[in-house]
Amino acid sequence: MAPARELMRLREGRRRVVIEGVQPEIDGGRFPVKRVVGERVTVEADVFTDGHDAVAADVRFRRDDDVVWRDVRMAFVENDRWRAAFPVSELGWYWYTLRAWVDRFGTWRGDLEKKAGAGQEVTVELPAGEQMITRAARSATREDAGALRAWVKRIQGGSDKAVEAALDPALLTLMDRYPDRRLATSYGKQLVVVVDREKARFGTWYEMFPRSCSPEPGRHGTLAEAEERLKYVAGMDFDVIYLPPIHPIGTTHRKGKNNTIRPEPDDPGSPWAIGSAEGGHKAVHPQLGTIEDFDRFVGRAREHGMDVAIDLAYQCSPDHPYVSEHPEWFRHRPDGSIRYAENPPKKYQDIYPLDFETESWPELWEELKSIVLFWIGHGVRIFRVDNPHTKPFRFWEWLIGEIKAEHPDVVFLAEAFTRPKVMYRLAKLGFTQSYTYFAWRTTKWELEQYFTELTRTEVAQFFRPNLWPNTPDILTEQLQTGGRPAFMQRLVLAATLGASYGIYGPAFELQENQPLEEGSEEYLDSEKYEIRCWDVERSDSLADFIGRVNRIRRDNPALQSDRGLRFHRIDNEELIAYSKRTEDRSNVVLVVVNLNPRLAQEGWLQLDLDALGLDQDQSFQVHDMLTEARHLWRGARNFVRLDPAVVPGHVFRIRGRVRTEHDFEYFM
Amino acid sequence: MAPARELMRLREGRRRVVIEGVQPEIDGGRFPVKRVVGERVTVEADVFTDGHDAVAADVRFRRDDDVVWRDVRMAFVENDRWRAAFPVSELGWYWYTLRAWVDRFGTWRGDLEKKAGAGQEVTVELPAGEQMITRAARSATREDAGALRAWVKRIQGGSDKAVEAALDPALLTLMDRYPDRRLATSYGKQLVVVVDREKARFGTWYEMFPRSCSPEPGRHGTLAEAEERLKYVAGMDFDVIYLPPIHPIGTTHRKGKNNTIRPEPDDPGSPWAIGSAEGGHKAVHPQLGTIEDFDRFVGRAREHGMDVAIDLAYQCSPDHPYVSEHPEWFRHRPDGSIRYAENPPKKYQDIYPLDFETESWPELWEELKSIVLFWIGHGVRIFRVDNPHTKPFRFWEWLIGEIKAEHPDVVFLAEAFTRPKVMYRLAKLGFTQSYTYFAWRTTKWELEQYFTELTRTEVAQFFRPNLWPNTPDILTEQLQTGGRPAFMQRLVLAATLGASYGIYGPAFELQENQPLEEGSEEYLDSEKYEIRCWDVERSDSLADFIGRVNRIRRDNPALQSDRGLRFHRIDNEELIAYSKRTEDRSNVVLVVVNLNPRLAQEGWLQLDLDALGLDQDQSFQVHDMLTEARHLWRGARNFVRLDPAVVPGHVFRIRGRVRTEHDFEYFM
Repeated sequence: MAPARELMRLREGRRRVVIEGVQPEIDGGRFPVKRVVGERVTVEADVFTDGHDAVAADVRFRRDDDVVWRDVRMAFVENDRWRAAFPVSELGWYWYTLRAWVDRFGTWRGDLEKKAGAGQEVTVELPAGEQMITRAARSATREDAGALRAWVKRIQGGSDKAVEAALDPALLTLMDRYPDRRLATSYGKQLVVVVDREKARFGTWYEMFPRSCSPEPGRHGTLAEAEERLKYVAGMDFDVIYLPPIHPIGTTHRKGKNNTIRPEPDDPGSPWAIGSAEGGHKAVHPQLGTIEDFDRFVGRAREHGMDVAIDLAYQCSPDHPYVSEHPEWFRHRPDGSIRYAENPPKKYQDIYPLDFETESWPELWEELKSIVLFWIGHGVRIFRVDNPHTKPFRFWEWLIGEIKAEHPDVVFLAEAFTRPKVMYRLAKLGFTQSYTYFAWRTTKWELEQYFTELTRTEVAQFFRPNLWPNTPDILTEQLQTGGRPAFMQRLVLAATLGASYGIYGPAFELQENQPLEEGSEEYLDSEKYEIRCWDVERSDSLADFIGRVNRIRRDNPALQSDRGLRFHRIDNEELIAYSKRTEDRSNVVLVVVNLNPRLAQEGWLQLDLDALGLDQDQSFQVHDMLTEARHLWRGARNFVRLDPAVVPGHVFRIRGRVRTEHDFEYFM
Repeated sequence: MAPARELMRLREGRRRVVIEGVQPEIDGGRFPVKRVVGERVTVEADVFTDGHDAVAADVRFRRDDDVVWRDVRMAFVENDRWRAAFPVSELGWYWYTLRAWVDRFGTWRGDLEKKAGAGQEVTVELPAGEQMITRAARSATREDAGALRAWVKRIQGGSDKAVEAALDPALLTLMDRYPDRRLATSYGKQLVVVVDREKARFGTWYEMFPRSCSPEPGRHGTLAEAEERLKYVAGMDFDVIYLPPIHPIGTTHRKGKNNTIRPEPDDPGSPWAIGSAEGGHKAVHPQLGTIEDFDRFVGRAREHGMDVAIDLAYQCSPDHPYVSEHPEWFRHRPDGSIRYAENPPKKYQDIYPLDFETESWPELWEELKSIVLFWIGHGVRIFRVDNPHTKPFRFWEWLIGEIKAEHPDVVFLAEAFTRPKVMYRLAKLGFTQSYTYFAWRTTKWELEQYFTELTRTEVAQFFRPNLWPNTPDILTEQLQTGGRPAFMQRLVLAATLGASYGIYGPAFELQENQPLEEGSEEYLDSEKYEIRCWDVERSDSLADFIGRVNRIRRDNPALQSDRGLRFHRIDNEELIAYSKRTEDRSNVVLVVVNLNPRLAQEGWLQLDLDALGLDQDQSFQVHDMLTEARHLWRGARNFVRLDPAVVPGHVFRIRGRVRTEHDFEYFM
């Protein structure tokens, strides 16, 4: 047993405090939590020791390149639970951990208080306290040391006054600055926070195909023409303009209109069939323009207050330069031919997937990273990543880590529509934002369940949803059949349930709703395979409505975060109600949406007044920011009626303090 | 970025499979899970990879002193969840971990099947499969290699028959023996199972004070007289006899009857005030006898099929030899006096707590360990540990680990009645069993909540409840006021809700129910402070009833584990219903208890037939093992009535296959 004895000495068996159940801590600390600049990280833990001694604990935090930890003292919550919060004010990584110790002075003081309270003789206890105060004075600032020694003098008397002095809260406050941490327990792990810029949390996205921006039907649009469309998009208050791949498009096995395999000579092909003799992922498709055109597009977008997001689709057309320059990056059949993409029995002959199991994977990884750096060099800070779930998890963790080490302001949006655990894993290992199942969550129950999972569980620590009612791949059944009210309803849901959301336009605002065929979610005459010419000035466009909703988002901080979401009861399955509020409650928004695009619905709301920061008997004003109607409500129970033919939802700003006749001086 | 590049090569970026969400895994693997010999450990994990490839996974396990891992292939459950179980057949520690890999052959075969099913031309796919089979043959046994090469020949034709051969399940079975694990992912952690003997899970405890075993009122009983009581205890089918401390009792500040501070000269003192001039924790109180008497007591108990459990109370009377020999193990006031135990304003002047913050803690730890080893040397294998929550957590983890490394059959029961997280922590760090809040859980809601937490959550992996309706410290209000029915009711609950339970007798079977004072849970004339003489032959004793209940436990394996517990609905808040069943469903017990000790209660049961292993339309016999009554029931809804004046509960054995007239040959 001699070795055990040695181990005992090394391990210091007198560290008596336990720290466990730390939150947030994703998968035992394997993954970071996410915040944006200016937010706080609230840390909780179970902290306790044996016996009856009082404990104290700190949350310790530092920026990645700081050497010194900063400490925040934790406060007791209940049931051995403690809590503290720290701010993250700069981009990049923060570390946090905890330490806890037996609070000797607090224990002594508490015991003294109880004994004195029970009328027991306590002067025998005073010297132990004197010793602690004297010890604290040794490590204190000059000023505090003087004050502490003065307290010692007052206690030394041993009189009733001495006990009173020992129990003085001012002494406790002073002593709390110099805790005896000699036998403190350190939490073994250091946990990480990734701090992003605000757009990681709050962004309003507009996706458009630049090749469809030509005013002349049938002609291939250019980046210069897409530039002209920016004013229109900015007019709706979008702040991210996202372009599908802008690279040269392959010709081998090019797809024709409506995804047919025999294209016409002038069919433009799918932008996701990347690469031709004219270049690969670092080139601009010649029909769109030049890299200088792209740079100018980025500059103009910035003038309009918009970031440009581009598509990061790591796959190649058979004509991509990589195919001849790096055949080892593709998977070959025993007969030497390269395998095209498949999801049997479906075949994608115009796409060669990269083989991440190649022996040359380090070179492949570096090349793929260089693509990101290339576009960062051209002003791009947001990447929408195509199908990340078909490339290895380790690759993404490495890539995103490498990029963000140098460019912490970069945002990666994961376009993974796949199984839930895969989607969460991608978020954990670094994706800033993620597409969601929102498009297919249509009933009240589905929406409540899903958004409770996303915002009220651990998921909220690492997964930032970005909600899309439509994409070029997804024209939901609801939009196909629900007409204009369905578009409005889904827009209000996306824009108010999600701090980040986006639409694929102009298909969305022009309510494009014809599917390729019965039962398909593909668009008929999809822009993926042909050039479209959109009349964005059409009188039935939803552009004004969308702009109004986006301005409500801009003006209401409650809608710029997913943290404050709460659902409220309403006695009609076709009506959904929820609120969002800022942490300081200065902004509270209540949304009610009619989920039925055909029939008017009415019902009684049963508001969770606590979630709204309202008292039971308080009058409050609800101001519908969509219609500018204002009502005076009181208490939890209130009636609503929504006709989809008029407007499918209320987006109320709640104003708690309302003047009534009781406020007038002459009312008595 | 050169270092990153090096790191990339080392880390092998091609390991594409993820293993996460492993269960059981207590606090990220910090603590072991618990099993007894002969049980299984069922391991679950989320296992998935990028893209559409199939995956496969093993649970790997080994005994602590084995070098080689044994593998069990995991089976797919749903939603990326996989599961496998392994047996633990020997005492001590087992390790388990996981590995997972892309199932290349399974992926190829699955794709082939889909393509062939869609009528696609697939001969071009066959050579890739041939390569995999040929490769597998190289590492296969001679016999399997031959068989694999034969399959290759059948596939090489490339005909329809070749495809049929490639898809043959027999080939898949063969290939599954030789998976290509070159790029397998290993789960980073090795997790631990502590395997105890069966008594750790299933034990029936009887606590008694040997000094009260004298047949002569007022005389101090001896271990020899306690030996005579063993037959009586064994007659009730108890299998653990637990003795409060048997060590010399201090005289300084000795407590008198009913915990008064002025004892009579002949007051025996509290057995927990350990140590006098006659010895400390390794000595036997002279009035009880000698160490040889103790050895004989242990031997006789064994003959009666009982283990002896002793009390491990690490505290000292002021007269303990440690006080003079090791003053450094106690905490001193500034004036040099030793601090007695306190929980202000309460004082325990007859007890000196050990100071675990002493500089000499390694010596103290070793000495405390030597106490356990001393009693192990005298045949003790079960220790009921007094107030473990007032000694450091690290100490217990070390002590229990050290003892069990040499003596894996030792059982430690934690007597910690304290806050929930502290109780769970003690269980996690090594205590084999734990006292619970059972004594204070009296309503249906409380019992259902608490036992669901104990048996249906992660808690069941590390915390083994031992239920006590009474102890020398706890005479609950219910027992004080509920009379004989309350004792019977609480006994049935403890004995059937808990695979381990115990009573403090003869106070229990004689229904001792007078508290020290109104509102107190202390017994009047408590054995802790005086000698009692019990008439165990009293006609109103519950000994027969207790014996019957314990025999039902012995005969029904379902009651010997807490794992199979399920609550059933019954439409009366005073009636509680639950079942337990063995994993193989060969033994199913249904219990219904009337929680009201005064009034008869009746109600309709709504049985969860699935939990009972019964079909909806099946007749089944319920055999009340307490009364020997038998009823034929059918379906979920059944009526029960329980009169506490007769018997407060049913303990039914369910016999699913019941003969009816339909079974007779002549019934058509």
